[in-house]
Amino acid sequence: MTELCFFNQVLEKNAANHVSLSPLSFIKRAATVYADRAAVIYEDKTYTWHQTYGRCCQLASVLKGFSISRGDTVSVMLPNIPAMYEAHFGVPMVGAVLNTINTRLDAEAIAFIFNHSRTRLLLMDSEYADVIEKALLLVEGTKPIIINVSDPIYGQGKPIGDFEYEALLAIQPENFKWELPVDEWDAIALGYTSGTTGNPKGVVTHHRGAYLNAMSNVLSWNLASNVVYLWTLPMFHCNGWCFPWTLAAIGGTSICLRRVDAEQIHHLLRKHHVSHYCGAPIVHSMIADAAITQPTPIEHKVSGLIAGAAPPTSVLERMERLGFELTHVYGLTETYGPATVCVKQDDWAERPQKERLELNGRQGVSYPLQEEVTVLDPDTLIPVPFDGKTIGEIMFRGNIVMKGYLRNEAATKEAFEGGWFHTGDLAVVHADGYIKITDRSKDVIISGGENISSLEVEDIVQRHPEVELAAVVAMSDEKWGEVPAAFVQLSLGSELSEEALIDFCRENMSHFKAPKKIIFGSIPITLTGKIQKFGLRQLLSAKESG
Amino acid sequence: MTELCFFNQVLEKNAANHVSLSPLSFIKRAATVYADRAAVIYEDKTYTWHQTYGRCCQLASVLKGFSISRGDTVSVMLPNIPAMYEAHFGVPMVGAVLNTINTRLDAEAIAFIFNHSRTRLLLMDSEYADVIEKALLLVEGTKPIIINVSDPIYGQGKPIGDFEYEALLAIQPENFKWELPVDEWDAIALGYTSGTTGNPKGVVTHHRGAYLNAMSNVLSWNLASNVVYLWTLPMFHCNGWCFPWTLAAIGGTSICLRRVDAEQIHHLLRKHHVSHYCGAPIVHSMIADAAITQPTPIEHKVSGLIAGAAPPTSVLERMERLGFELTHVYGLTETYGPATVCVKQDDWAERPQKERLELNGRQGVSYPLQEEVTVLDPDTLIPVPFDGKTIGEIMFRGNIVMKGYLRNEAATKEAFEGGWFHTGDLAVVHADGYIKITDRSKDVIISGGENISSLEVEDIVQRHPEVELAAVVAMSDEKWGEVPAAFVQLSLGSELSEEALIDFCRENMSHFKAPKKIIFGSIPITLTGKIQKFGLRQLLSAKESG
Repeated sequence: MTELCFFNQVLEKNAANHVSLSPLSFIKRAATVYADRAAVIYEDKTYTWHQTYGRCCQLASVLKGFSISRGDTVSVMLPNIPAMYEAHFGVPMVGAVLNTINTRLDAEAIAFIFNHSRTRLLLMDSEYADVIEKALLLVEGTKPIIINVSDPIYGQGKPIGDFEYEALLAIQPENFKWELPVDEWDAIALGYTSGTTGNPKGVVTHHRGAYLNAMSNVLSWNLASNVVYLWTLPMFHCNGWCFPWTLAAIGGTSICLRRVDAEQIHHLLRKHHVSHYCGAPIVHSMIADAAITQPTPIEHKVSGLIAGAAPPTSVLERMERLGFELTHVYGLTETYGPATVCVKQDDWAERPQKERLELNGRQGVSYPLQEEVTVLDPDTLIPVPFDGKTIGEIMFRGNIVMKGYLRNEAATKEAFEGGWFHTGDLAVVHADGYIKITDRSKDVIISGGENISSLEVEDIVQRHPEVELAAVVAMSDEKWGEVPAAFVQLSLGSELSEEALIDFCRENMSHFKAPKKIIFGSIPITLTGKIQKFGLRQLLSAKESG
Repeated sequence: MTELCFFNQVLEKNAANHVSLSPLSFIKRAATVYADRAAVIYEDKTYTWHQTYGRCCQLASVLKGFSISRGDTVSVMLPNIPAMYEAHFGVPMVGAVLNTINTRLDAEAIAFIFNHSRTRLLLMDSEYADVIEKALLLVEGTKPIIINVSDPIYGQGKPIGDFEYEALLAIQPENFKWELPVDEWDAIALGYTSGTTGNPKGVVTHHRGAYLNAMSNVLSWNLASNVVYLWTLPMFHCNGWCFPWTLAAIGGTSICLRRVDAEQIHHLLRKHHVSHYCGAPIVHSMIADAAITQPTPIEHKVSGLIAGAAPPTSVLERMERLGFELTHVYGLTETYGPATVCVKQDDWAERPQKERLELNGRQGVSYPLQEEVTVLDPDTLIPVPFDGKTIGEIMFRGNIVMKGYLRNEAATKEAFEGGWFHTGDLAVVHADGYIKITDRSKDVIISGGENISSLEVEDIVQRHPEVELAAVVAMSDEKWGEVPAAFVQLSLGSELSEEALIDFCRENMSHFKAPKKIIFGSIPITLTGKIQKFGLRQLLSAKESG
């Protein structure tokens, strides 16, 4: 022990050599280093970094005025407008925890979140006034303070209560004195996962993790300060994968986007020379579709991150044709957004397109600053062999894993069993160490005792040139127990028949894995780009029994 | 307090969501993600990331075999060869502290370091065998274990003792199991500052800071994984500004360089398409000089970091002409290398060259992940106004500041007085918030009661087109107390006279600031690119009295 003391004697932490890691440090620096550069652009309004920082300080001052402090929950129900960006800094500046609510939730779900999170204050856009009013009726005890954000672009909707965001900000000091958290393990954000059954779980993240994943985005995507980022990804989804903080770290520019609209996206890509954006496969697919009708092609380089269990090959292919550089990432709310990335190896560029798209469609390797991703047998916690066949559960370990689930000791304990965060996603590991998701644990189809990966079937269905999107679920079957059924969304104008598509599947996979039924139509997607298989299964059983 | 508990209840750190920040995580990831990419190239030898990681593990295994463990000091006296790179990972892998010794030190200074650091093991290049043998005679108590690194490129020199690096590595497992430090505040490295008088001070740095400054380099320079980095900067200088760890984080390639030789640098720049390098002004100056005689110009983009109190404008200008992109940084061993950077604002590119070079020659703003740099009145700790005139002391605060000085409580306490790290460097702050060094505290010339900044005088002297380098020191004077005297190194072939140069100075600055004496000749530079003004003052007083 004398040896240890040698390098630790009178070499303790002090105010000069230790501060808490927090993304708040990023915006403080951006405000001086990139003072006059555009931080946030929304329609015809541009805020510089100096101004955005000032507005965040003003928001913090407003919150302090309402006695919001360390450990209080501030909820926001906002689209991707400047106030949403500002909340990512203003709320933690007073030590409060930012709870971003999915704007598509119903009143009951919102009320559950208000109650469970003990929301003290809500920032809301008037578009959601009706549903919020209903939710407020269900709140137990003291109702949250409501601040309305009036967006002249939207214009409709009615305010709730008397407080208006801009009016409150206007009378606050731009140089409000805030402080870094005393402890970098303090909560910075709360995000409720949708969950297929039961109540949603509140994922608690901390300043240290937010700081590190913001950096990890920089490393993963080689971001420089000239980045112009378009907000196609909702900031309520894992805090926009930590990109609000990443953009402050590099001094990049945010282009706000109230609604995901393909025409508007194409307009903004050109107008602001957007360099980067993120989204679920459906967002990229929309961009590719709308590209066809645009009068001019996009001349500058655009990079996108695409997230999804199995990004349809057709989307990757169409985006490649468009000249967009897509990188595939994977993660969960519990990992602050992206936690793996499909790093492109130098020699992939020369491979045949089919092979290249397959390589690029995998979940890949750990995100730069995530300590470790692995695929383990969920019972024994032994790693699966790198054979591309043996299925295990994806698990993470590192600083970019949540603190746990709020007020849910049982779920937290279960999630961290054995010193790993259990994702519930099943995957194989290829010989090169790259991970490929095969399925969600609960989405496996068990047919005649054989496990069928619904994602594997979807992957094949989606290879058909006329298929835009497919979702495969289990359908009950007297003989086999379960068989695969596919919901299929066809390309515009396609007249593909059920029989022809089933034949295509049988030609390309083991017969027992081919869907026995095809339901054509538009597939409902959550705003976070996920397909709710729970809903599809219900729809299917209603059809079957009906 | 109930509120605090709310977000901290059963949300403690555990093995799944918390690990120590350490640059060792970077190489572990590089070994799998960039397995087959070149990590280290030296002459005709290339090691991939898989191989380099294996060699670092083998080194760790060697050290464990010698019972080196947490808190032990391992010293290295090596040029920039692969073993030096490997030591940056292998040594901390067993929890030991890496002490890099300046290879130009004499036996007494080396012996002091061995004794003060309680060095248990030394990795040495046989080039330094003579001086190390002498130093070992002065070691009190148990002598360190010596491991010789035989470099066939050097070939001369005799080994000390029986242990040879490659032979030891060869019999160790490449998959040696190492562990991250239990505490990220554990020491990772020790570096002795030269100091103008008295014994050197041992700067202790930690894993957390090394991790963060490695990231900070990525942000500051927008580094991507295709970086090819030439080792013109000695790794014994602040651990090569943390670049060994930065390169592992991005999977970049290190080109080793045993000796700073302009011809060899030009050869390697072309051969390996080097994209990045770092160095003191003299290194860049050498490259510019040698460019004239090269048969072909360099066609690809090369970026350099230049560090120095006042980089000569002529160097910046010549490098600009060569097409190299130089960025100015400033820092100290106590801040893990670079701690400020002169971030180029968008509109600078269009400014007239003179103005642009002046803007680029400033110390600038805080390095991306350094919390804060400021210029304070050293007595009151009140910030100086942003007027470009008022002089104060540069001070830092943040996670990239040393733990303190080893076994030197008094110096540590003094350095951290008032919650800031005191650099001893004097500076002004310009209206845009950019810092510009005026002088080292101890280098101020006090003439007739007026303070004269030696750097300000140097800056003017160096503007003369025939001046390559200048160093200004105080010369005692009966009338004025002190007056400036300038040591001046002229460009090749120049026949500039003392009188003509003094006239030039008087035309360009207040007369009382102009040097009263010029001493022409080559200016001795330390290997870390610093001018030892202490030595120059001694030389001057010897001349005066002689």
